[in-house]
Amino acid sequence: MDFPVRYIVGVDIGGTNLVVGTVPEDGSALFGYQTMPTDVAGGPDGVVGQIERLVTDSLAEARSELGSDIEVVGIGIGAPGPIDRHTGTVFLTPNLGWTDMPLRDRVSAALGLPATLDNDANCAILGEWWRGAAQGGKVVVGLTIGTGIGGAVVLDGKIFHGASGVAGEFGHASIDQSGRKCNCGNYGCVEAYSSGPAIARRAVEGIEAGAESALPQYVDGELDRITAKTVSQAAADGDKYCLEVITETAHVLGLAIANMVNILNPDIVVICGGVTAAGDHLFDPMRNQVRRRAFRPGVAVCRIVPGSLTGTAGVYGAVASFKEQTWGSC
Amino acid sequence: MDFPVRYIVGVDIGGTNLVVGTVPEDGSALFGYQTMPTDVAGGPDGVVGQIERLVTDSLAEARSELGSDIEVVGIGIGAPGPIDRHTGTVFLTPNLGWTDMPLRDRVSAALGLPATLDNDANCAILGEWWRGAAQGGKVVVGLTIGTGIGGAVVLDGKIFHGASGVAGEFGHASIDQSGRKCNCGNYGCVEAYSSGPAIARRAVEGIEAGAESALPQYVDGELDRITAKTVSQAAADGDKYCLEVITETAHVLGLAIANMVNILNPDIVVICGGVTAAGDHLFDPMRNQVRRRAFRPGVAVCRIVPGSLTGTAGVYGAVASFKEQTWGSC
Repeated sequence: MDFPVRYIVGVDIGGTNLVVGTVPEDGSALFGYQTMPTDVAGGPDGVVGQIERLVTDSLAEARSELGSDIEVVGIGIGAPGPIDRHTGTVFLTPNLGWTDMPLRDRVSAALGLPATLDNDANCAILGEWWRGAAQGGKVVVGLTIGTGIGGAVVLDGKIFHGASGVAGEFGHASIDQSGRKCNCGNYGCVEAYSSGPAIARRAVEGIEAGAESALPQYVDGELDRITAKTVSQAAADGDKYCLEVITETAHVLGLAIANMVNILNPDIVVICGGVTAAGDHLFDPMRNQVRRRAFRPGVAVCRIVPGSLTGTAGVYGAVASFKEQTWGSC
Repeated sequence: MDFPVRYIVGVDIGGTNLVVGTVPEDGSALFGYQTMPTDVAGGPDGVVGQIERLVTDSLAEARSELGSDIEVVGIGIGAPGPIDRHTGTVFLTPNLGWTDMPLRDRVSAALGLPATLDNDANCAILGEWWRGAAQGGKVVVGLTIGTGIGGAVVLDGKIFHGASGVAGEFGHASIDQSGRKCNCGNYGCVEAYSSGPAIARRAVEGIEAGAESALPQYVDGELDRITAKTVSQAAADGDKYCLEVITETAHVLGLAIANMVNILNPDIVVICGGVTAAGDHLFDPMRNQVRRRAFRPGVAVCRIVPGSLTGTAGVYGAVASFKEQTWGSC
């Protein structure tokens, strides 16, 4: 007997962009891909309105492709910041300016469908476990590197939330007690070295201090236009100073990963985000750092890989999180 | 209907001492407590012989107290070093000089009882969760501080083993990428600052460099007799330099715990080992360091406590691990 396939809409809310897609419960495809810049200025109302429009458009596109009678069972949402998945509330998102925002129920009411909420980094890593580079992993440690560094632990296909739902903040593990000041108030956090803006800042600091590099030419001498992407591009073009910056980034990330290997003994570490475009320039020294610093029995079973669901990991993961929260497993 | 209580013998193998006790399955008491110095020179045969004698003595004492007809169902063993609990083999214990030692089956054969094996730090922390200071914890992070620093994660009452059984090496999380060289080959490991020998070594280094302290008087000027216990004692007596050394120890441990709070979001962090005798001198600056460095939602739900099963946590935990491995839960 054939059961009809059920569909779930995944919503990935970022500080920069919203991404939405309609995914069958087996995760075999993504229909009705939609994206637009997040209307931060519009506040919660603006963003809920955008989500309503994008979900409607995504479903319309999916229905025109799959037939108008597909069964749509709900909406999985991933949002930045600490959230309470039991109440569906976003506690605080500095980038969006929200406080105690009942996001899940507002989206559910706007669209007349059940909804679930989880943290965006949790969703991205669960997405990589479900359909991406971390498939088959029993103990998955994941990092999402962007404006900040988020992360998640996925154990046997379930997000590990910790005692109060805030586990997985790998970006705020300190690797140098008297290191760089982090936005979170701590010192030496991985994020203070290896987030996108931190990579750009370190590169600019070196150039201002006299490092020789072609990097300024990429931005017509306007150093404040340098981003992690510019640094990666210059490194890929062979700029030696930018290669040093990428290597230093890799060493910091590798040290943090070595700590995770010793503590959590993962079989897969997956790294998501634009910085992975640096490829071997980043991954070779990162893996070497892990080999040098972590215990051999842990290193032997651990693969360190870039994420493979560029731009859609959060959508797939929001769908997977909906399945887990609604049906108990993904 | 009353079920008869079943008894399990717990064996805690340390590089210095063996400890054995007979425990009813509900963990309500410990009968026939036995301990003796580990016969390291006697090799595997010597230690297996000692275990045979101690288990026999413990059971005889328990039977004389409880009646000769008590039902004894097995032996739980905790041993240092990476072990394979599926095969019951100790891979390597530098302190005991064992390699690929089939400890579980040798003990089982010697005593004619089923046996299980787990890592000693895992057992100690599981023991604290079962009957000690970590009771009721959902996400327990534990550190055992002695000659080395071990650790364990206990999730919902089960030891978290990781992908290949070697999770929980908190002692080898680096908190300073260019810090003190650790025996494991890495730099800046917590163990390089805060193990018993490291605390003593740091104290001696300072005195050799001219720090003013009464510490040398505790050892008649023989600095190589200084141990962590001597440093704790002098700190308790008000020696300011030794208080600094303990505070530095607390800061390193606190930084490592702050990282764990951000990553694993535990509700209980339990610290076991002789160094906890320093009490508030250690725990106050440690807790302050965690408050300063970790995220508030994680700090708010996390209690940091000393272990309460001094000398017997490993025995209780070996029994709990036997129950978990044999019956699926403790």
